[in-house]
Amino acid sequence: MSKNNQPLPDNVTTQKNNDDITHLLLRPVAIDTYRENVAYLHRDCAVYRAEGFQALSKIEVRANGRHILATLNVVDDLSIVGCGEVGLSEDAFVQLGVARGEKAYVSQAEPPLSMEALFRKINGERLNKEDFRGIVSDIAQHHYSKIELTAFVVATNRGEMDRDEVYFLTQAMVDCGRRLDWKESLVVDKHCIGGIPGNRTSMLVVPIVAAHGMLCPKTSSRAITSPAGTADTMEVLANVDLPFEALTEIVLKHHGCLAWGGASDLSPADDVLISVERPLSLDSASQMVASILSKKIAAGSTHLVLDIPIGPTAKVRSMRDAQSLRRLFEYVASRLNLSLDVVITDGRQPIGFGIGPILEARDVMRVLENDPAAPNDLRQKALRLAGRLLESSPDVRGGDGFSIARDILDSGRALTQMNAIIQAQGSHHFDYHHPSLGALTFEVKAPKAGVVTSIDNMHIGQIARLAGAPKIKGAGVDLLKKMGEQVSAGDVLYRVHAEIEADLTFAKDLCAKASAYMIGSADDISHVFVEF
Amino acid sequence: MSKNNQPLPDNVTTQKNNDDITHLLLRPVAIDTYRENVAYLHRDCAVYRAEGFQALSKIEVRANGRHILATLNVVDDLSIVGCGEVGLSEDAFVQLGVARGEKAYVSQAEPPLSMEALFRKINGERLNKEDFRGIVSDIAQHHYSKIELTAFVVATNRGEMDRDEVYFLTQAMVDCGRRLDWKESLVVDKHCIGGIPGNRTSMLVVPIVAAHGMLCPKTSSRAITSPAGTADTMEVLANVDLPFEALTEIVLKHHGCLAWGGASDLSPADDVLISVERPLSLDSASQMVASILSKKIAAGSTHLVLDIPIGPTAKVRSMRDAQSLRRLFEYVASRLNLSLDVVITDGRQPIGFGIGPILEARDVMRVLENDPAAPNDLRQKALRLAGRLLESSPDVRGGDGFSIARDILDSGRALTQMNAIIQAQGSHHFDYHHPSLGALTFEVKAPKAGVVTSIDNMHIGQIARLAGAPKIKGAGVDLLKKMGEQVSAGDVLYRVHAEIEADLTFAKDLCAKASAYMIGSADDISHVFVEF
Repeated sequence: MSKNNQPLPDNVTTQKNNDDITHLLLRPVAIDTYRENVAYLHRDCAVYRAEGFQALSKIEVRANGRHILATLNVVDDLSIVGCGEVGLSEDAFVQLGVARGEKAYVSQAEPPLSMEALFRKINGERLNKEDFRGIVSDIAQHHYSKIELTAFVVATNRGEMDRDEVYFLTQAMVDCGRRLDWKESLVVDKHCIGGIPGNRTSMLVVPIVAAHGMLCPKTSSRAITSPAGTADTMEVLANVDLPFEALTEIVLKHHGCLAWGGASDLSPADDVLISVERPLSLDSASQMVASILSKKIAAGSTHLVLDIPIGPTAKVRSMRDAQSLRRLFEYVASRLNLSLDVVITDGRQPIGFGIGPILEARDVMRVLENDPAAPNDLRQKALRLAGRLLESSPDVRGGDGFSIARDILDSGRALTQMNAIIQAQGSHHFDYHHPSLGALTFEVKAPKAGVVTSIDNMHIGQIARLAGAPKIKGAGVDLLKKMGEQVSAGDVLYRVHAEIEADLTFAKDLCAKASAYMIGSADDISHVFVEF
Repeated sequence: MSKNNQPLPDNVTTQKNNDDITHLLLRPVAIDTYRENVAYLHRDCAVYRAEGFQALSKIEVRANGRHILATLNVVDDLSIVGCGEVGLSEDAFVQLGVARGEKAYVSQAEPPLSMEALFRKINGERLNKEDFRGIVSDIAQHHYSKIELTAFVVATNRGEMDRDEVYFLTQAMVDCGRRLDWKESLVVDKHCIGGIPGNRTSMLVVPIVAAHGMLCPKTSSRAITSPAGTADTMEVLANVDLPFEALTEIVLKHHGCLAWGGASDLSPADDVLISVERPLSLDSASQMVASILSKKIAAGSTHLVLDIPIGPTAKVRSMRDAQSLRRLFEYVASRLNLSLDVVITDGRQPIGFGIGPILEARDVMRVLENDPAAPNDLRQKALRLAGRLLESSPDVRGGDGFSIARDILDSGRALTQMNAIIQAQGSHHFDYHHPSLGALTFEVKAPKAGVVTSIDNMHIGQIARLAGAPKIKGAGVDLLKKMGEQVSAGDVLYRVHAEIEADLTFAKDLCAKASAYMIGSADDISHVFVEF
């Protein structure tokens, strides 16, 4: 509708829709369309015919004073939806929150108000704070279709956003959800941008800094494309899906928690955006900064240590890219008044030995128990990150953090703290000496003698996923050799664990294509120049 | 998988999937997902569990030596798909072309090979000919999900493509489908970029140039977002959905046809891309040029007259934009060896009186019958476009086209030609003196005296759509006043026709918001400087 139309209220009488003609009965359709609301109408439904809807167009479904927007799928099977019914996909039905069989009304959805700003962004324009606020609010309220979400994500991809726009986006993402206030001047957190299997430092950093008395309310995601997220691994040891009130109590009592952040309504637009970023494997700098920082600000953090691993198969492949990402994180964090300490770390290979929830939980417990079999790289990295966080405390001198963290770990105070958190969240039985790994296994051996010169993070992660991780907790990959180690031909490089025969086969097929290991001479090892 | 993995064929034995464990039975699911293949697996399906699929991920479905890619929806209702079944949405089932109940196998789909080029385009790089060939071929074969299609469309939007890239894209779109060869040196066509309701010049230009003996095999689309396409309007008079062989015969005998181009497999990637362009209302210059020119080249045209209307509510709003679009069309057409004549026309208001299939067919027949009630703007525009096309014939002097076209129309030869084409395609009964318009009507009147200074193309089109056009052929809007006409307060500006009470209400509601007409003084009329 163009702006210069003259309304003609006196010449045209508007009449209300006749409810008896146009109402439909609401019913759930048991199809999981993963965060895209889908509505199902039968092709012979009178309302569908009258409205001139088209498949994939967006419609508004109203019932009992509530309403949602949904993409329309047209159905030709009366057992899925009848002619007098409107069906909703699982998420959409829950979101509308109205009982089956209630009267519902459908109409062409007006495009979300922010669509106009989206089109400007698609056409390469710079958007302002209000534009982002409108877009993000529409996204959080599920007003965007998958197609519109994708358009936004691609149009705001790397290079299309200046740093102020990234700040506007982040602020808008914070503002559209819940925001916690711990009433403390120091609320710490650590985060890694991801991409390195086995990198479970949070499960060590949280008990260490909590043992020091710092507040560290850590919420984590489950694995999206990786073989295990912190939430999946922590779940081996304890409940992670806790009501918000219980979580608050645990944090206030034990200074820390290690929980799943899924249901907390912190930065809800982020949860929607990920539904298109994931299938596109799109992880642009702008989106990453907005996603991570909005979650942290919403969770009430005041100080954040951010881990950016670099390596040939890490998310960030060069120091130049890492520095540019660091600057963007720092700019936005500073605008949002978050104290940020970025550390660029060695991401040339997985951290620790295990890849998969139980295998990674085993590694974590070995470190906490000061077991001689503990992976030293995981221990060292966790101590250094914890040290940096400890130094955000006004009573810790710059440079002293590492040794304080080491004392807390070596003395067993970190273990005690972790056990307290595990008990508080609700402990699961786990014996790290005898982890219940998938019983179906195969080993991949070195084809020749030499030095392990690289381990492909993405490929070894994919093998662990095909073996069943993270869905099957005991599935995954156990690395027996790491980079720089000397091997003889026939030495076992790693062992794959699965529970289901088909999983084992899929993983084996992928290993046959490529092992993820390179064997060569010590000179072939790529170098990275990082702090740790 | 990174490139430097060493395959270890001797150390890992690959075993073939055990068919008995992993096969599923194929079944159609009667849901229309509009050109996006969707596969349905039950959440408790053993294969789903084993493979670690996620909702919305892409899977490959294989059966009987055929295979398709589909987006996965997870189902929790055994009546939609059972645990031992894989369901396919309507289009997907047809595309796979294997009978219900046959054994089918599913697996994680490898991403399409062209995905790598798509990511480069998303990141702002220029693509080469082979990149576009790969992408377009994957699109035409339905290897892209809706999300990936959207990413492509947004990443190749205005300003992101140089003119050689547009040429590569167009050529790739031609190459991936069928291409007709009429064995004639002169095969003419006309096309309008759209956006102007009532603009049915093709139904006049085709009989005029065909009467002159030129070959004009016109295929048109049905309305996508407009109240009527040429195919919808022609369908009032004759069959438009003809098998390819019948069409060829008609063209060879009568020099022309007016048919629906939907099933002809000309530029099939275009039909896929439109499924995301339409919901986004995205119509970038690059996509428009590639879409239009690929269809024309594939249809075997050698000469094209292209109509670019400009006006405040047309697709193109300024002469600068029209000229830049003209240059892009000309560059690509010339690389493809298509003779192109671009005319920039007055797009400030609808053409003719009627908007909607029957109303527009009435206007067309009035012009062909030389009826004094014929809309003069439609007649003049058609004559000028036909004249330009006639001048592509070597025996017509530049400047003579218009008068030749007028002679053909005035003498009744165009009507005779049109009737022959109608008979050949299979005529429908239509009496243009008594068109069967929707019986439910209301009128919108001038709120004050003055001159009609503008008619909003988009808004009046939307009113006609809500009234039921194009699905209901007799629905639509009949304009009684056009731009520049003097009106008194209370004069009827236009009449809306509908068949269904609800449609009438929806249209009336929209008219109450804005009439689409502006009444003012003659000085308020916007000026455009166009050839005609």
